[in-house]
Amino acid sequence: MALSNIQNSNNKSAKKVMRQCDQMAEFTAMKGGLLRAYLTPEHKQAHKQLALWMQEAELETWQDSVGNQWGRKVSKNPTLPTLIIGSHSDTVSNAGKYDGNLGVLIGLEALSVLADVDLPFHVDVVAFADEEGTRFNTTLIGSSSVAGCFQQDWLAVKDKDQITMGEALTHFGLSPDEVGHDARTRQDTLAYLEVHIEQGPVLEERDLAVGVVTGIAGAKRYQFTLRGMAGHAGTVPSDMRQDALCGAAEMILAIESYAMQHDVVATVGKCDVKPSAVNVIPGETTFTLDIRSLKQDVLESSTLELLAQLDVIAKRRNLSIENEQLYKAKAVPCDITLQKLWGEVVEAETGKAAFYLASGAGHDAMVMPNITDIGMLFVRCEKGISHHPKEQVIESDVGVALDCLVAMINRMAVKYS
Amino acid sequence: MALSNIQNSNNKSAKKVMRQCDQMAEFTAMKGGLLRAYLTPEHKQAHKQLALWMQEAELETWQDSVGNQWGRKVSKNPTLPTLIIGSHSDTVSNAGKYDGNLGVLIGLEALSVLADVDLPFHVDVVAFADEEGTRFNTTLIGSSSVAGCFQQDWLAVKDKDQITMGEALTHFGLSPDEVGHDARTRQDTLAYLEVHIEQGPVLEERDLAVGVVTGIAGAKRYQFTLRGMAGHAGTVPSDMRQDALCGAAEMILAIESYAMQHDVVATVGKCDVKPSAVNVIPGETTFTLDIRSLKQDVLESSTLELLAQLDVIAKRRNLSIENEQLYKAKAVPCDITLQKLWGEVVEAETGKAAFYLASGAGHDAMVMPNITDIGMLFVRCEKGISHHPKEQVIESDVGVALDCLVAMINRMAVKYS
Repeated sequence: MALSNIQNSNNKSAKKVMRQCDQMAEFTAMKGGLLRAYLTPEHKQAHKQLALWMQEAELETWQDSVGNQWGRKVSKNPTLPTLIIGSHSDTVSNAGKYDGNLGVLIGLEALSVLADVDLPFHVDVVAFADEEGTRFNTTLIGSSSVAGCFQQDWLAVKDKDQITMGEALTHFGLSPDEVGHDARTRQDTLAYLEVHIEQGPVLEERDLAVGVVTGIAGAKRYQFTLRGMAGHAGTVPSDMRQDALCGAAEMILAIESYAMQHDVVATVGKCDVKPSAVNVIPGETTFTLDIRSLKQDVLESSTLELLAQLDVIAKRRNLSIENEQLYKAKAVPCDITLQKLWGEVVEAETGKAAFYLASGAGHDAMVMPNITDIGMLFVRCEKGISHHPKEQVIESDVGVALDCLVAMINRMAVKYS
Repeated sequence: MALSNIQNSNNKSAKKVMRQCDQMAEFTAMKGGLLRAYLTPEHKQAHKQLALWMQEAELETWQDSVGNQWGRKVSKNPTLPTLIIGSHSDTVSNAGKYDGNLGVLIGLEALSVLADVDLPFHVDVVAFADEEGTRFNTTLIGSSSVAGCFQQDWLAVKDKDQITMGEALTHFGLSPDEVGHDARTRQDTLAYLEVHIEQGPVLEERDLAVGVVTGIAGAKRYQFTLRGMAGHAGTVPSDMRQDALCGAAEMILAIESYAMQHDVVATVGKCDVKPSAVNVIPGETTFTLDIRSLKQDVLESSTLELLAQLDVIAKRRNLSIENEQLYKAKAVPCDITLQKLWGEVVEAETGKAAFYLASGAGHDAMVMPNITDIGMLFVRCEKGISHHPKEQVIESDVGVALDCLVAMINRMAVKYS
């Protein structure tokens, strides 16, 4: 699909959101590229701009204890808890303009569109100040504070300049002692909605503007170390070798094959050989595994099965194998009712059957189940590229996503009244 | 086999050779390890020591144009051209004591044992001053000069301190203009014999002290670059990936499997992934191939077949593949008559059937066919380890090799008279 072939919808709001994404990208610490990290001058400037736009949309605005920017569409007669719509405003280094920011700006524009409609609940739009973990390697700081799961020991984590998060909060004008004290509760929150670029190629492949997210995959990461016997590439016969790279190669194919046949994605992203010489049989190989599934039980059982397969291969090849778990995150399903509502609005707005897909990447929505139900909508992005200057969305898709979000808020007003 | 369990033979000469290997290892540029490179003070000192030992064995001694050390057992009535016995005296960095040096010292000791025997030919023992290429990355300098294939452009090659080989020759007291002018000819050379450690595990595996070398394998080296598509480890479905590492893994296994089934050894010694992140699908992988065979035609056909197999894999996986040839050396067979003679003496000295094996590593003998027939004998080394301080031989094996060499010289005296 050539994106240029797609007619832009004549959607003034979509154009506005696209322009705002461009404007947000100007708040950057990186010459010729986009980098906006937590508790930096760019964070402050970007949120100041967001606050102005929020005020133009007649929202009440404030910055919370951890540096998130909020705008509230106040209901005259709130009979229900508050609906939160959000995503993040921080970026990775040399980032694209849409990851996170698009969701914030679509949320804001939806409230602008609904300015004259009174809803039975307040609607908050929030720009979480850190999701990527670019500065402190600790991800989801903004949403964790709101969801009541900010970990106090994060305050001692240092950035590359040895500044702790606590010190950075103080420099920013915030009080480390108060972080998380304004967390929302289950009682005062109706739901959390997030619009985000897909960061994968599935919607493009299926020629769909948007897709309903079924949940956020759980993930585990391991590093494996295989040890065999280094040796002279010319003098050790094939059948007397204990080649750690050949062992790793068999394991990498086993992992690939397993993922093809099961409800997981699995990736070997790193592979390092020792001694790494053209004429020496590899004596040691380390490689990583990243395995994800939307179904936590499938993730657990698949990981066990794969680890067992790797052990069998190592044993047969007379290699030692060690593994170290680097990371784990549980699968987070999206609320079924919210999925169904998203499905209805997508069908109504696009005239096509709604497409449901899991998110392999992590999002702020991951931590929000701590206080409320979550519902996510993905927007097609070109070639699935993200975390890169080439990250791109189509204006007409932004229009579709915006229409869906407006319709979703209206349906929730009906559904939950 | 525990080497310590093997009774040392009561062989005074073997003990002497072992002691001389230890003494030679003292001429080193490396604290706590062995490093003796071409045209260095250590080269000069080691060859001075060799010359002394040669003189003790009543040999005529001289240094040739390229810095090789010679000792000649002069025949009273030479009816045949000169027999050359040799190996190299230089080492890699952090080397073992036996690679090269053992062959020189066994040759020297054989002539010492035969001091009172008049042969129908002169016998020269030579310590080639460079085989490893440690200083100039140009290997086989010493033997190439003798065999008439020293390349004059080597004189311009620089070491890491930007000193050319020509300058180094001058500093050493030699004349760059004269290098190779004292090359031997086919007319004045009967044969070239070399005793060398195996540098592989085959003799140890078969519990044999020595083995007859059938030839020196030809080798080709390539670097392959595979390009696919990098992507997010969580968001790109398995069946939409172009994973350059999975492609490389399949190729590495194909290479391993091919080598098992054909008369080649093949090694992937290096494998590097880009971007090399735990959560990113590899977009590019480079790996090397080192393939060797004693049979030049097998090497050629196997290389073609393997390259074709890799192309098929790349195509099926929608990856681009490029290759760059890094190195090639033709296979060099040992002379059939000399192999047969070695076989006879090995059977006579050990009481076991002679075992024949190819050399996967390069040796000085590789270039000598330019002027004469070559014959090589391998000595078992512990676990096949070489180019490492752990390089080890058994004294009794050295005794066997020495006895075989003495018997070989005697048989040649009969055979060629």
